[in-house]
Amino acid sequence: MKALQYRTIGAAPEVVTVPDPEPGPGQVLLKVTAAGVCHSDIAVMSWPAESFPYPLPLTLGHEGVGTVAALGAGVSGLGEGDAVAVYGPWGCGICAKCAEGKENYCLRADELGIRPPGLGAPGSMAEYLLVDDPRHLVPLDGLDPVAAVPLTDAGLTPYHAIKRALPRLLPGSTAVVIGTGGLGHVAIQLLRAMTAARVIALDVSEDKLALARQVGAHETVLSDADAAAKVRELTAGVGAQAVFDFVGAEPTVRTAGAVAAVEGDISIVGIGGGALPVGFGALPFEVSVSAPYWGSRGELIEVLDLARAGAVSVHTETYSLDEAPLAYERLHAGKVNGRAVILPNG
Amino acid sequence: MKALQYRTIGAAPEVVTVPDPEPGPGQVLLKVTAAGVCHSDIAVMSWPAESFPYPLPLTLGHEGVGTVAALGAGVSGLGEGDAVAVYGPWGCGICAKCAEGKENYCLRADELGIRPPGLGAPGSMAEYLLVDDPRHLVPLDGLDPVAAVPLTDAGLTPYHAIKRALPRLLPGSTAVVIGTGGLGHVAIQLLRAMTAARVIALDVSEDKLALARQVGAHETVLSDADAAAKVRELTAGVGAQAVFDFVGAEPTVRTAGAVAAVEGDISIVGIGGGALPVGFGALPFEVSVSAPYWGSRGELIEVLDLARAGAVSVHTETYSLDEAPLAYERLHAGKVNGRAVILPNG
Amino acid sequence: MKALQYRTIGAAPEVVTVPDPEPGPGQVLLKVTAAGVCHSDIAVMSWPAESFPYPLPLTLGHEGVGTVAALGAGVSGLGEGDAVAVYGPWGCGICAKCAEGKENYCLRADELGIRPPGLGAPGSMAEYLLVDDPRHLVPLDGLDPVAAVPLTDAGLTPYHAIKRALPRLLPGSTAVVIGTGGLGHVAIQLLRAMTAARVIALDVSEDKLALARQVGAHETVLSDADAAAKVRELTAGVGAQAVFDFVGAEPTVRTAGAVAAVEGDISIVGIGGGALPVGFGALPFEVSVSAPYWGSRGELIEVLDLARAGAVSVHTETYSLDEAPLAYERLHAGKVNGRAVILPNG
Amino acid sequence: MKALQYRTIGAAPEVVTVPDPEPGPGQVLLKVTAAGVCHSDIAVMSWPAESFPYPLPLTLGHEGVGTVAALGAGVSGLGEGDAVAVYGPWGCGICAKCAEGKENYCLRADELGIRPPGLGAPGSMAEYLLVDDPRHLVPLDGLDPVAAVPLTDAGLTPYHAIKRALPRLLPGSTAVVIGTGGLGHVAIQLLRAMTAARVIALDVSEDKLALARQVGAHETVLSDADAAAKVRELTAGVGAQAVFDFVGAEPTVRTAGAVAAVEGDISIVGIGGGALPVGFGALPFEVSVSAPYWGSRGELIEVLDLARAGAVSVHTETYSLDEAPLAYERLHAGKVNGRAVILPNG
Repeated sequence: MKALQYRTIGAAPEVVTVPDPEPGPGQVLLKVTAAGVCHSDIAVMSWPAESFPYPLPLTLGHEGVGTVAALGAGVSGLGEGDAVAVYGPWGCGICAKCAEGKENYCLRADELGIRPPGLGAPGSMAEYLLVDDPRHLVPLDGLDPVAAVPLTDAGLTPYHAIKRALPRLLPGSTAVVIGTGGLGHVAIQLLRAMTAARVIALDVSEDKLALARQVGAHETVLSDADAAAKVRELTAGVGAQAVFDFVGAEPTVRTAGAVAAVEGDISIVGIGGGALPVGFGALPFEVSVSAPYWGSRGELIEVLDLARAGAVSVHTETYSLDEAPLAYERLHAGKVNGRAVILPNG
Repeated sequence: MKALQYRTIGAAPEVVTVPDPEPGPGQVLLKVTAAGVCHSDIAVMSWPAESFPYPLPLTLGHEGVGTVAALGAGVSGLGEGDAVAVYGPWGCGICAKCAEGKENYCLRADELGIRPPGLGAPGSMAEYLLVDDPRHLVPLDGLDPVAAVPLTDAGLTPYHAIKRALPRLLPGSTAVVIGTGGLGHVAIQLLRAMTAARVIALDVSEDKLALARQVGAHETVLSDADAAAKVRELTAGVGAQAVFDFVGAEPTVRTAGAVAAVEGDISIVGIGGGALPVGFGALPFEVSVSAPYWGSRGELIEVLDLARAGAVSVHTETYSLDEAPLAYERLHAGKVNGRAVILPNG
Repeated sequence: MKALQYRTIGAAPEVVTVPDPEPGPGQVLLKVTAAGVCHSDIAVMSWPAESFPYPLPLTLGHEGVGTVAALGAGVSGLGEGDAVAVYGPWGCGICAKCAEGKENYCLRADELGIRPPGLGAPGSMAEYLLVDDPRHLVPLDGLDPVAAVPLTDAGLTPYHAIKRALPRLLPGSTAVVIGTGGLGHVAIQLLRAMTAARVIALDVSEDKLALARQVGAHETVLSDADAAAKVRELTAGVGAQAVFDFVGAEPTVRTAGAVAAVEGDISIVGIGGGALPVGFGALPFEVSVSAPYWGSRGELIEVLDLARAGAVSVHTETYSLDEAPLAYERLHAGKVNGRAVILPNG
Repeated sequence: MKALQYRTIGAAPEVVTVPDPEPGPGQVLLKVTAAGVCHSDIAVMSWPAESFPYPLPLTLGHEGVGTVAALGAGVSGLGEGDAVAVYGPWGCGICAKCAEGKENYCLRADELGIRPPGLGAPGSMAEYLLVDDPRHLVPLDGLDPVAAVPLTDAGLTPYHAIKRALPRLLPGSTAVVIGTGGLGHVAIQLLRAMTAARVIALDVSEDKLALARQVGAHETVLSDADAAAKVRELTAGVGAQAVFDFVGAEPTVRTAGAVAAVEGDISIVGIGGGALPVGFGALPFEVSVSAPYWGSRGELIEVLDLARAGAVSVHTETYSLDEAPLAYERLHAGKVNGRAVILPNG
C-alpha cells in the first residue's frame, strides 16, 4: 500500500509503498478514509537526530478515520465496513490511568514501548491503518469522515482542557482563548456549546479575530502588550476564570497569567516553549496552571457526540495521499485555512 | 403603607394598610419595585388552620426586587437608591450551611424562628420590605425589575437543580424537563445556555409543548402513558442523564423514574405530593433521586448574571398592588401566561 | 477439571467434572487460587425457573483470584505465573461507560450477552477460569489470595458507594452503616481509612455491634424502632451526611431515610427488596437516594492498594472445592464467620 | 486596655495601652483568651516603609480566640460569655466569593479597605478584639482556647490546601509534605485523618523528620539534592499525586515539581519567594500548580470539628501579653517549639 513516511531527519515526508498490514489476534485493520495534518507533525520533523524519539521511517498521521477492513482473531462487537474514528493516545489499557480511559496518561506506555499511530507507531497517512485493539475505535455514527477526523486531536485536546475547567465556567464567568487557529477555533465553539461563559479571544491579527467572532467569541482582543489590560477592563477588573493558551510561547503564557482571576485556571496547551512561574504572590490567589495533553477515550466519544449535534465544525481542505507532502508544505508556510485532511483512498 | 396580606385561613388575600417598617441596626429597608406571584403561595393558602406554620396575618411575596430606601445603623457597602434583588431563603448566616451560602438549608433557621419573606416574615407584596441583612441583596446592575423578580425563585430553583446535575450533562447526554410552566420554562432556557445536552420537554398539552420548543427544547413529548417509551426511543434506549420534574405528582415521578438512564439524576422539584421509591432493582443502576429546595446565595448571583447576558427570560404580566388579589385568582384559574408580577409602587 | 455448578433450579450446587477451558485469542486462562462465596449466589439460587436469567449449568463464583496459566494469542503485558485478581462486572470495553472503566454499568452488556463470571459466564469455583480480556485482571502485588479475593466484590461494592459519598464525608460529618456483616464490616474499615467522618454502625445484635466497634465504628446502635432517634441524638439532631444500607429491606431503608441529614446521601446497597420513597417533603431537603451496583475497574485497583497498605482486612474461613457445597450450606444457615473462601486448587 | 503593637518600621513590637474598643451596630466585642504568633507577622515586620501596606500603629494577631464580652446593636444568635474562634480573612460578605464563604478571596476587600485583624485591622494581641460581624465567629464548643487558636491559620491554611487535593488523594496515592514546621506538622495530621494516602515528609534535619514521623508521616526524606530521586523511588517511579510546599523557596518548589506525578497537584503555601515554571514539557503531563491563601469560613468550622474529634493537635507554648515581644524574638531565632500562643488576659 501507499503511505506517507518521514524517512530522513530534516527531509520532507515522502509517499512510498510499504507492505500491506495484516491484523493479528485482537487487532483491527482500517481502510483509512481521512487523516488529519497537524502542526505537531511539523514540530516532530524539526527535531534533531540525536533526540528523535521514534524509529524511522515513520508513517505519519495521528488523526485517523476509516472503515473496518478486517478483524483479527478474537475481535467481536465490530463488523467489516463499520465507520470509526481512532482514539490516538494509545496506552497499556490496564494501569490505573488506562482503567479510567485516560490512556493519554498511561503509566506504562513508555516502559512497554507503546506509542500513538503517527507518533511512533505507523500512522493514518496510508491506505490502511493497523489498530491494536478495538477499544481505540469510536463509531462515526453518521459523521462525515473529513469533518470528523480533526476532532480526534484538534477537537479532543481543547475539549479535555475545557472539561477540566467546567466547574469554574459558570454563568457570569469569562473564558479567554489565546490563539484562535486549529485548536483555538474549536475551543471557542466548545465553550459556547457547553457553557454560559463569556468568551474573549486573543490573536495577533484582525483576520483571525474576525474568524473568532464568526465561530462565537463574544469579544476579541489583539494579542499585544495591552491585551491583558483590555481583558481586565472587559471583566470589570476581575479577570478570567479560565484561560486556554493554544500558543504556549513566552509572551502568551505571560498574558495568560496577567488575565487570570482569583481561583482561575490556566491551561497551557500550545507547545511554544513558554513557561509561567507559579508561587505565592506571582499570580492572583490560587490560580492553578497546568499543561494538559490530548484527552481520554470517554472524552473522544463526547466530542463526536457534540459534532453529531452540530455544535462544532472545523473548516477543512482536502488532499489526496500523493498531495500530502504539499499539504505539509502549505501548513508550514501558514497557507492552510483551517485543517488539512488527507484522503488516502480518495 | 399598603400590603397584600393573607389574613384568614381559607380566605383570599386582601390589600390592607399596615405601619411603615423602619430598619433596625444591620437591616435594610427596600422600596419594592416588583414582587412575584408564585404557585406555592396558593399552596400555602390551601393549608388547614391546624397545620398552618406561620403567624397570621402574613404579608405575601417571596420574590422581591426593590431600591434601597434606608440603611439601618452599621450597614455599609450599599447606598440609597441601589436597585437590588432579594435572596429569599434566609438563614442564620453562621452555621455550616450558611457559611457556604446555602441559607436555604440553614441548620438553625427553625430553631431561631427565621423565615423567608412572604413565607413567615413580612413579604414583598407591600410598598416597603424590611431585609434583615445586606447579605440577602444582589445588585440588579441594570436588569429590569419586572424581568428580574421571577428569577429569585422561579429562576433560582431550577438553576440550583440543574447546577447539581451539570457533571452529568455532558455532550451526548439528554435532559428531560417535566412540566414546562413557570419553572420548567426557565429550566429549558438554563439547560440550553449552560450545557450541550439535548433537552426533551414533557407536558400535557400541545400548546405548552409549542412554548417549550420556542424557548429551546430540542424535542417535546406529550406527558401521557406512552411518554416514557417515547423518551427511551428518542435516546436509543439509554434514557436521560438528568430528569427535572417540576410537577412532582405521582404520575410524573413515575415517568421520571422510567426515563432515567443508568447513573442518571432525578430532581423532584414540584410539590405535587408524589414520591418515587428507590431501592435495588427499582430503577436503573445508581439513579439518584432527590428533592432540592430553592438555591444558594451564590447561585442567585449566577442566575442574575445569566439574565444580564440575555440567556434567560421569563414572560411576565404586571399588576398593581390593588390588583394583586386578581393576579392570584387568575393564577389559580390557570389564566396567567408566564409569571404574574406585582408593582407595589407602580 | 472440577467445578462447582448450580445445575438444577432449587437444588444445591454440585462439584462436577467439566472440560478444561482453553484461552482463545485475547483471552487469559487463570489457575484459580481462591474464590469467594457470596450471599448473592444464594439469592440467585433461590430464583424460580421462569425468571432465571442465566443458562444452566452455571459454574459459580464471581469473586476470583488466580495465577496466569496460559495466554491466548495476542495477549501481552502479562506473564505465566502472575498472581492476579479478577474484576468481575465485565462489560463490552468500548461503550461510554466502559471507556471510563465503569464496566459494571456497561451500556451494551445485555445486548451482547456479556455476563460476569459466576453470574452467567463460568465462574471462579473451578480449577481454572477463562478471562475474556487481560484488562479484567489486577496484579495482586504481594497480597495474600485468600485475603484479597473477598475484596473483589465485598470490598469493591462498599468502596464504590463510599467513594461517591466522599465529598460529603468531611470533618464533622457522620456516616451511618446499616448491617455490619460481610460488606458493612468492610465499609466501616474503609470509612475509617479514607475519611475523618464519625462512623455509627447499626445491626440487630450486640455480637455484631461488638465486631463493628472492633473494626472501627465510633458508635453502635441496635437496629430497632428507636435506632433513628438515637442516631439523631448522637448527631445533635443533624443526622448523617451519608448512609450506607447493606441490608436494603423495608425497615432498614426507612431507618436510612429517618437518619439522613439535609443534603445527605443514602446508598441502598443491600438487595433486601426495600424501597424508600423520595419526593418533596418525604425526606429532609435534597437527600439523594440511589442503589449502586458493584464498582469500576479503577476502584478495584484502589481497593487492593488499600489492602496492601494494611487498611482493610476481611475475616475468612477456607474450604476445598469439594467442601464448597458445605460452605454454601453454612452461609445459608448464618454460620459463616466473615467470608467463606474456596481454594479450588488447595 | 493593653495591646501588642507594631509601631515603627523595623522596630520590635511593643506592649502599649490603647482605648478600650466598643462594639458598634452589628459588631461583637471579644475578650481575647488566646492569640497565635505566626511567622508571617515576622515577614510583615520586615517589609520596608515604602511598601508597607497597613496603617501604623498595628495591633498584631491574626489568630484569635475569645469569649463574647458585648454585642453591638442588632446582633443576635450569640450570648455574652460564648467561647468562639475568629475567622480571620474578613471580606465584604456580599460578593460572589463571600457568598460561598470564601472571604479569603473577597473580590471587594481591597476596594473597600477591609483587612484581617492583625493584618491591617486591630488584631487579637490585646485584651479585647472588635469583630465586625458575628459571621466571623465559630463556637469553640468545648475546645481548649490555647489548642484551638493556632488552628485558625496554621490549621486552616493546610486544611484548605489539602481539601482541594482530596479527589487526588485516593487509596494508593502519595502526598508529599515539604517543611514539617507549624503548618506542615498540622498538614501531616490532617492527611492521615482525612485520607488513605501515604504521607512522605521532607525537611532539612533529622530532628524535624523525627517529629514528622511522630505525628504520622509514613516516610521521611531529608530535603536535599537527592530528595526528589528518593521520593520517586519510594513511589515506584510514579511520583506524588499531591505535593504541599510549606516553605515555598526556590529549592523546595523545584523539588515539588520533581516529585509530582502525572495529573498531580502542587500547592505552594510557603511564602519563601520561589516560583515554579509551568509549561508544556516543563512538568509531567497536567501537573497543576497553584498558591492558595488561608481558607474559607466553612473550612474553619470543619477544622475545629476535626480538632474536637481529637484528630489534630498543635504543640504550643504560652506567653502573657507582656511577654509577647519575647515570643516574637524566640520565634525569629527559631527557638519556638511548635506554636507560640499569647494569653492577653491570662
